[in-house]
Amino acid sequence: MSLIQEKVNQAVEILKEKNIDMWLTFVRETSGVRDPALDFLIGEHDLTWHSALILTNSGKKIAILGNLEKDEMSRLNVFDEIIGYDKSIIPFLKETIASINPNQIAVNMSKNNVHADGLTHSMYETLVEYLSDTPYANRIISAEPVINALRGRKTSTELERIKKAIQITEEIYQKTFAFIKVGMTEIEVANFMHKQMEEYGVGYAWPRENNPAVNSGPNSPVGHNGPTDIKIERGHIIHFDFGVKYQGYCSDIQRVAYVLRENETQAPPEVQRGFMTIVTAIEKSREAMQAGINGNSIDNIARDVVTDSGYPEYPYALGHQLGRVAHDGGALLGPLWEKYGDSPNQILEIGQVYTLEPGLAVPNYGYIGIEEDVVMTQNGAVYLHKPQTEIVLIKD
Amino acid sequence: MSLIQEKVNQAVEILKEKNIDMWLTFVRETSGVRDPALDFLIGEHDLTWHSALILTNSGKKIAILGNLEKDEMSRLNVFDEIIGYDKSIIPFLKETIASINPNQIAVNMSKNNVHADGLTHSMYETLVEYLSDTPYANRIISAEPVINALRGRKTSTELERIKKAIQITEEIYQKTFAFIKVGMTEIEVANFMHKQMEEYGVGYAWPRENNPAVNSGPNSPVGHNGPTDIKIERGHIIHFDFGVKYQGYCSDIQRVAYVLRENETQAPPEVQRGFMTIVTAIEKSREAMQAGINGNSIDNIARDVVTDSGYPEYPYALGHQLGRVAHDGGALLGPLWEKYGDSPNQILEIGQVYTLEPGLAVPNYGYIGIEEDVVMTQNGAVYLHKPQTEIVLIKD
Repeated sequence: MSLIQEKVNQAVEILKEKNIDMWLTFVRETSGVRDPALDFLIGEHDLTWHSALILTNSGKKIAILGNLEKDEMSRLNVFDEIIGYDKSIIPFLKETIASINPNQIAVNMSKNNVHADGLTHSMYETLVEYLSDTPYANRIISAEPVINALRGRKTSTELERIKKAIQITEEIYQKTFAFIKVGMTEIEVANFMHKQMEEYGVGYAWPRENNPAVNSGPNSPVGHNGPTDIKIERGHIIHFDFGVKYQGYCSDIQRVAYVLRENETQAPPEVQRGFMTIVTAIEKSREAMQAGINGNSIDNIARDVVTDSGYPEYPYALGHQLGRVAHDGGALLGPLWEKYGDSPNQILEIGQVYTLEPGLAVPNYGYIGIEEDVVMTQNGAVYLHKPQTEIVLIKD
Repeated sequence: MSLIQEKVNQAVEILKEKNIDMWLTFVRETSGVRDPALDFLIGEHDLTWHSALILTNSGKKIAILGNLEKDEMSRLNVFDEIIGYDKSIIPFLKETIASINPNQIAVNMSKNNVHADGLTHSMYETLVEYLSDTPYANRIISAEPVINALRGRKTSTELERIKKAIQITEEIYQKTFAFIKVGMTEIEVANFMHKQMEEYGVGYAWPRENNPAVNSGPNSPVGHNGPTDIKIERGHIIHFDFGVKYQGYCSDIQRVAYVLRENETQAPPEVQRGFMTIVTAIEKSREAMQAGINGNSIDNIARDVVTDSGYPEYPYALGHQLGRVAHDGGALLGPLWEKYGDSPNQILEIGQVYTLEPGLAVPNYGYIGIEEDVVMTQNGAVYLHKPQTEIVLIKD
């Protein structure tokens, strides 16, 4: 069974569970604006003209699309019924919806999760216009719960790919730590990591410009910034944020190193204290993660560890889901800030993969951010790799 | 001046011309759903949190975005004012709009052009909600005219990149014609072309699965289909559809070859008649292209040449614009079919690049589709490369 078939079957089960009759993904010219749900429905293929991909809770799988794309879609072996047209989708779409006669039509719109928000405003208006003389225009609801579950609950195939992405990320980190020398620039280090990625044949979990982020010392701009000409010096904390994409699935891991000064055998106490604060914040929050708990309560735990230790609050969420993209959407381990919408109130579920990534600055030394990837199981959150518990020491 | 600066300055001029006060691109998590307008405003960068990119007809260039992305944006040297926030964009967005006090706010929604339709339905609703206690919620209009002009009117930098993409495409075609032997499969030919693309270091103008399309003989599925295991035989027409991406800009060219049978020195009369019909349709329609004419009238000319010659009507448009993507949107050389919306009624302008690509099937031989790329000038449409006027003959 292909991964697409696996996920489409899972989607039908989710429709049954959520008691939603019909899920409609309505798109056009997907090379221009691509609905993220397509990854699960048709993989990397594109659709040119107005196209409707329909799944129902009775297990129907229907595609309505331009005739020139019928053959390509049928080769996917995903849709039981493929309806082609030349001039207008309207009669075919209306007839298909009428034959299903759904109580709700879930479409891809969501304020909380961008990955459940692939329907553009004009495509929404087009759909409402098409259905204006039917009972169905008033039955449109958000497919967010369906898409959140489908993206979040990783199948074994998906989890294996994420694990492989993580394994490659860790190997590249080890090679990078061995490569680094005092006097190199952040850009030189990033170039080395890019070359390693090419050798492994993996893609970028987020754009190359700031992947990896490499921040050496207190003056390097942290955040979504690319590496700079700043040189690695003794007494610098070096902070990395790095993720690769393996067969469509991502890793996302931050690591911290310290460049020893002459006569030092370990990092200074304030660096160690910052480091252990972050390690503690991660471990305490991971321990609390259980299916059924909301993400905000987990965020609070880590945030409190950092602020109770006297550091300022980090201006971002503790962790996000990981999957086809680095920020995979859905339930978020985050604070209740407006920009995060309802995501921090959503519930942790078995099969979800999360990052845990608190951070803090140590004045005069640099930025400490560690990011670990965990998967939700019946026994809570389990690390997908060995977490960082000691600062990587760079000697020369 | 960078290409982004060039296009943003052009956008301000277009706002003046169209008498539109303010253009707002409102996005979030652009790695999930990417508004195509971003290519012109921030290039390949991504924005994570709710972000507003604002241009005004008085020349203001303002970005409001998450603090962690301020530094990266400022390095683009595009926006004069960059406002960062941590928790919510609302107060900053409202204050900025109030200070501009625009009569219209053009946002990225369009039924006709997917590339002017990057605002999702929920982001539209979010914006209306943010502005609900201001006079501005009712001043929202479509930015389609702005984006159509910005995408369509190529600057010299953009045109040079398209020309280079076309040149590479033609070179790969020549190598491919020399490579083809009877008995090869369509897939083998496509693999050869993919290898050439790697050597030239160019990307795909549309997805690799069906780029190139290679159709050998009468039984190969034409349309948006990938190459198959069908073998090239004597007496086959071979049809190609192929496009590369060079520094972000595309080519899109179709070519036709014929595999000579023993004792043949040219293609059979019915193949030649079909070929000359398509050549004529392209040349007649190109000759009629002038700034100020609508695309539908051009489509009619080519369509009539084909149907008046007794062939069935091709079920697609004569030609589309070419640029950052193969189907670049805006004015279309197309029939007035519902699926094309208002695009065929839109007007040809100087600086636009179009494809011309009618087609027809010759029973028992295969598909004839030729596609040429032209640029609109003061003197009408000019070929960007040597058009195909003779069938490529494959001898063995």
